[in-house]
Amino acid sequence: MYRLRPRIAWLLGLLTLLSACGTPEAPGAGSRGGPATEPPGVDAPQTGDIAPPPTTHETLLTLDSHLDTPALLVQPEFDIMERNEPPESQVDLPRMIEGGLDGGFWVIYSQQGELTPAAYQQSRDTALLRALAIHEMVTAHPKEFALATEPADAQRIADAGQRVVYLSIENSYPLGEDLSLLETFYKLGVRMVGPVHFANNQFADSSTDPEGQIWNGLSPLGKELVTEANRLGIILDGSHAHDDVVRQLIELSATPIILSHSGASAVYDHPRNVSDELLKAVADSGGVVHINSYGGYLEALPENPERDAALQELYAQYQALDPDDVSGRQALADRRRAINEQFPPAMSNFDMYMRHFLHILDVIGPDHVGVGADWDGGGGVRGMEDVSALPRITESLLEAGYTEEDLQKIWSGNLLRLLEQAQSYAGTAAG
Amino acid sequence: MYRLRPRIAWLLGLLTLLSACGTPEAPGAGSRGGPATEPPGVDAPQTGDIAPPPTTHETLLTLDSHLDTPALLVQPEFDIMERNEPPESQVDLPRMIEGGLDGGFWVIYSQQGELTPAAYQQSRDTALLRALAIHEMVTAHPKEFALATEPADAQRIADAGQRVVYLSIENSYPLGEDLSLLETFYKLGVRMVGPVHFANNQFADSSTDPEGQIWNGLSPLGKELVTEANRLGIILDGSHAHDDVVRQLIELSATPIILSHSGASAVYDHPRNVSDELLKAVADSGGVVHINSYGGYLEALPENPERDAALQELYAQYQALDPDDVSGRQALADRRRAINEQFPPAMSNFDMYMRHFLHILDVIGPDHVGVGADWDGGGGVRGMEDVSALPRITESLLEAGYTEEDLQKIWSGNLLRLLEQAQSYAGTAAG
Repeated sequence: MYRLRPRIAWLLGLLTLLSACGTPEAPGAGSRGGPATEPPGVDAPQTGDIAPPPTTHETLLTLDSHLDTPALLVQPEFDIMERNEPPESQVDLPRMIEGGLDGGFWVIYSQQGELTPAAYQQSRDTALLRALAIHEMVTAHPKEFALATEPADAQRIADAGQRVVYLSIENSYPLGEDLSLLETFYKLGVRMVGPVHFANNQFADSSTDPEGQIWNGLSPLGKELVTEANRLGIILDGSHAHDDVVRQLIELSATPIILSHSGASAVYDHPRNVSDELLKAVADSGGVVHINSYGGYLEALPENPERDAALQELYAQYQALDPDDVSGRQALADRRRAINEQFPPAMSNFDMYMRHFLHILDVIGPDHVGVGADWDGGGGVRGMEDVSALPRITESLLEAGYTEEDLQKIWSGNLLRLLEQAQSYAGTAAG
Repeated sequence: MYRLRPRIAWLLGLLTLLSACGTPEAPGAGSRGGPATEPPGVDAPQTGDIAPPPTTHETLLTLDSHLDTPALLVQPEFDIMERNEPPESQVDLPRMIEGGLDGGFWVIYSQQGELTPAAYQQSRDTALLRALAIHEMVTAHPKEFALATEPADAQRIADAGQRVVYLSIENSYPLGEDLSLLETFYKLGVRMVGPVHFANNQFADSSTDPEGQIWNGLSPLGKELVTEANRLGIILDGSHAHDDVVRQLIELSATPIILSHSGASAVYDHPRNVSDELLKAVADSGGVVHINSYGGYLEALPENPERDAALQELYAQYQALDPDDVSGRQALADRRRAINEQFPPAMSNFDMYMRHFLHILDVIGPDHVGVGADWDGGGGVRGMEDVSALPRITESLLEAGYTEEDLQKIWSGNLLRLLEQAQSYAGTAAG
């Protein structure tokens, strides 16, 4: 049995945001074994050099469906162009290049508060500013990043040597009870939306709310959210939602759904994971499941009460901090790193990650699986600490007998098929 | 007597947005008489050159309180870094440098529609995207532009050789009936807000609504807007508002108000202009009046029915255009230029502009006057067609006997004093 510790997991997620301050290096410098693709601006091999043939991984269009990195973009100390270090940071341009990651869905994540109009408004504003931060990342580095909103954008952008930036929403809480805001975010580029996160909200039951369900799935407003996402051409994401919500999303959504970062209950029984039966239901309706690398959902990790207490205390200090207090924020980031050293997090490992991955592939096949490792949101395992290690997934799947064609579907084809279906429906059927 | 033609004026404003496509040149190239300050990246004079002493204008911190240029930023053909041409475009980096304009308040202007929730939502989204466009201008050109939110930012940014980008709202219509959105825009940087534009709306009566007044000034929601702007530290702007609104803003606002682009009724009796009595009331309460260069408010201009008809037809074509139809948009921009050549707009002239300017200075003095020439929003006169001609204002005021100290107040000191007062109040008195 799992141990349900959403509050600690939530603290971890929040505290990650304090401390993305690895040693800066020039992009591409310090790579392990050389970049998987050439960094932008680097010329072709010098005369006399013989370029090795590209690996399978390098030839694939690779997208991760759940990059929580935008939470770091709003931290003044973080620079997406520099090489940072895990566990505080897991995604940046140098490591995307090294790991052969072309891009993915960059998440507007919202911490949930009270279900009140005033709290909704604050969250709405924060989410809008998060979307602005993603746009500004692209605008500030137009050679390296490009905004993507259509299925065909991904290959075009990758072919141009840029990183692909789709936007998604994790937790629809900031929409409050005003569904017209989904269109606002659509106009800002959002093409995937998950109704709920760790706790029940105005739209849906969570898989991890300690109080249990309140809606028996989607709320009436949650059902309207499904209709509105379909109308706009936004993929619905059932990760974090209660199983009843996932079933209702499958039933109600006019186009197939995604679980953008989930695992297999058959490997480890945790409410954030999905039973074989539900995996099949997602796949039977045309949907896809992208595999999470969040350690606490991969296996039962040992308790770490000293770490939990230290993080709790740090979180209280963070809550009391003036947002403009740069040195104070720096001090808490240093403290966060010290806690990581003194009480290292319990971590799962790459073999456990692949056990979930291969099990789900066994159950629903390569047309319905992808990668959504929850980078900068709690993901990462020993042996795959950040996106620079992503070629290991490709190697493991090739060893397991999956073909390059399978891998192309897993790494982006399935995800882009869902977006194509969502947009085709919006373009034709929806009013 | 004036002729009230708000609809035609509104068409002009809209159509301006279609056609900002002057001949691109390198920044700083083609300047008339040389740049007023060195363009960024240009080295100091070569050995042997003798730099002339800076003119008074070059030594001043210069801000215009109403730059409508953001409406052009969302047009794909427009490039703020290139030299464009009037009348289609009046503000860009090369001409700001040439005209010695350090920056100002960059306007989130909203065209008004129906007073319905659905229309409010569409306008809200457009206004949010306009704010995003302003941020992206700054992010894309971080050496040339910088965001400003505090009074001290302006001098610091100008000293760094960058252009100053404060944000303001012209027409609060996109807030709908949700005043919490004013805080959203505050977080996006907005520090000035005008309740109303050409037509009465949910907040206030307009000075130019053909139907007359509906609120006898501010609506109840408009009074809440005043309180909320005061709470946040946002300057209230009475330009476009009915005189009754201006009087009520003076009475209700905890800090002095601005008329960001207005003229003198004593020079030309038009409802967009202000009587000496009301000018004095603004000044007596500590406020400032920034002088507009919108020709139709400076004097009675000859009728031009052929031009009006051609613009009306063009506007209908624009309304029917697919926003993604780039060549269609280009064709309409070409048509707009052709109309400007065939039926040139009736224009006022620089002497008329200075008549308004000097009259208002006579009535309320240099502590209460500034420049808000409605660039890219209908402003511009013969002899001052774009911001490159701004040194003429300084020359004229020096000739009229105003001192350098007066000019420093007129060009930015008064405006920054208002912002300081607004923010001091928000920081201390407001809840």
